[in-house]
Amino acid sequence: MTAGGPMVGRLLGVGVGPGDPELMTLKAMRALGEADVIAHFAKAGCASHSRAIAVRHLPAGVPELPLYYPVTTELPKQCDGYRDALRDFYDDAAATIAGHLDAGRTVAVICEGDPLFYGSYMHLHARLSPRYASEIVAGVTGMSGCWSAAGMPIAQGDDIFTVLPATLSESELARRLSEADAAVVMKVGRHLPKLRRALAASGRLPRAIYVERGTTAEEKMIPLAAKLDDEAPYFAVVLVPGWEERP
Amino acid sequence: MTAGGPMVGRLLGVGVGPGDPELMTLKAMRALGEADVIAHFAKAGCASHSRAIAVRHLPAGVPELPLYYPVTTELPKQCDGYRDALRDFYDDAAATIAGHLDAGRTVAVICEGDPLFYGSYMHLHARLSPRYASEIVAGVTGMSGCWSAAGMPIAQGDDIFTVLPATLSESELARRLSEADAAVVMKVGRHLPKLRRALAASGRLPRAIYVERGTTAEEKMIPLAAKLDDEAPYFAVVLVPGWEERP
Repeated sequence: MTAGGPMVGRLLGVGVGPGDPELMTLKAMRALGEADVIAHFAKAGCASHSRAIAVRHLPAGVPELPLYYPVTTELPKQCDGYRDALRDFYDDAAATIAGHLDAGRTVAVICEGDPLFYGSYMHLHARLSPRYASEIVAGVTGMSGCWSAAGMPIAQGDDIFTVLPATLSESELARRLSEADAAVVMKVGRHLPKLRRALAASGRLPRAIYVERGTTAEEKMIPLAAKLDDEAPYFAVVLVPGWEERP
Repeated sequence: MTAGGPMVGRLLGVGVGPGDPELMTLKAMRALGEADVIAHFAKAGCASHSRAIAVRHLPAGVPELPLYYPVTTELPKQCDGYRDALRDFYDDAAATIAGHLDAGRTVAVICEGDPLFYGSYMHLHARLSPRYASEIVAGVTGMSGCWSAAGMPIAQGDDIFTVLPATLSESELARRLSEADAAVVMKVGRHLPKLRRALAASGRLPRAIYVERGTTAEEKMIPLAAKLDDEAPYFAVVLVPGWEERP
């Protein structure tokens, strides 16, 4: 603390991994121990997934700051009302956290997977890291958890690996699946029939694996070709391995 | 153990993360504690990187099995002699590990990053997992370590994220960088001048970040546009963030 200067807290973006609490890192454990406030995102009316992962390691008596999304279904970002609601939500959440930081409190935002890889924390980081000291604790991503649970080598050597949202058009999915050696398709949900057709068109259906909630007690995993229906939750992923040739 | 059946050990592929020993998971620690033999890859004449990451947590008295690569520089996989030497090396390493497994010993192969994401362990897994019980402990990838150390949000929402080897041609690198929202380019080394031109051609040079040995004590990180030379080690990576628009 510099003489006469204000004592300001630190912002910690803490990855807690894909779901299995044992896939938390030692650094994440330490960050939880250093936090004065522990924040987590959740859908309104639902328990926070990141909190459920970390719950055994939350220090007793540390205040929690739940951040409830204003919407329960992700809509196209072109939708103005959705954009505005999310922007206001992140602005408000950042302002609340800034209040704690200004009061000298260190705030840990716990995040499923890795904080800077498709995570909501990024919206807080973009708003707060220019003004406050911040630190990221990298985490095991959801996709690593899935291919590890499947025991499926995903990419090797000079493979090109791609993460695709299932929201792409069928032709674009098929083209990009054809051009990648290995791929993970996210946000499967209601897009599964389209994704299945795109995988078939690109010749990638036979080796594709469907995974829900990898590494958790609710894990479901099945070759996509053997999955007889096209029902899938939003967070389901499909793994498409590369690496067919090897020494 | 089934009555009269042989007692056979388990094969564990254990990710130890990108370099910072604190980015090891609780599960990796447990796996080290359960191992009867701890194997690790290294270049001949060099210390194993994965061993250096895990060294504080290696149980005393557990035998180690170093696996020394037969070559010190990666060559194109089209090169027959290289392919053959690697195939023989992995065959021999798998046979040695199979001997331990047959004798009832659990063998943990410790791996930098995540075992099934561009890792040498995959070559052992492909040879041994059809015959022996195996388990993968997912790890924090090197690329997660790099963007976390940089505090750089890499991908969000419907971003398309791609991992590219710098060995691709300049035109192919430029095309794929143009078509992805976010990218990580690996195996930079002597390809940096070509990669720099491809990033410039695709308009991605201004935001690209160059990273060596992210999360370790030797970490080097600099905007690529500010790096005045084109010297880079083989394992350096370049991060190209997506996510320019946001609520």
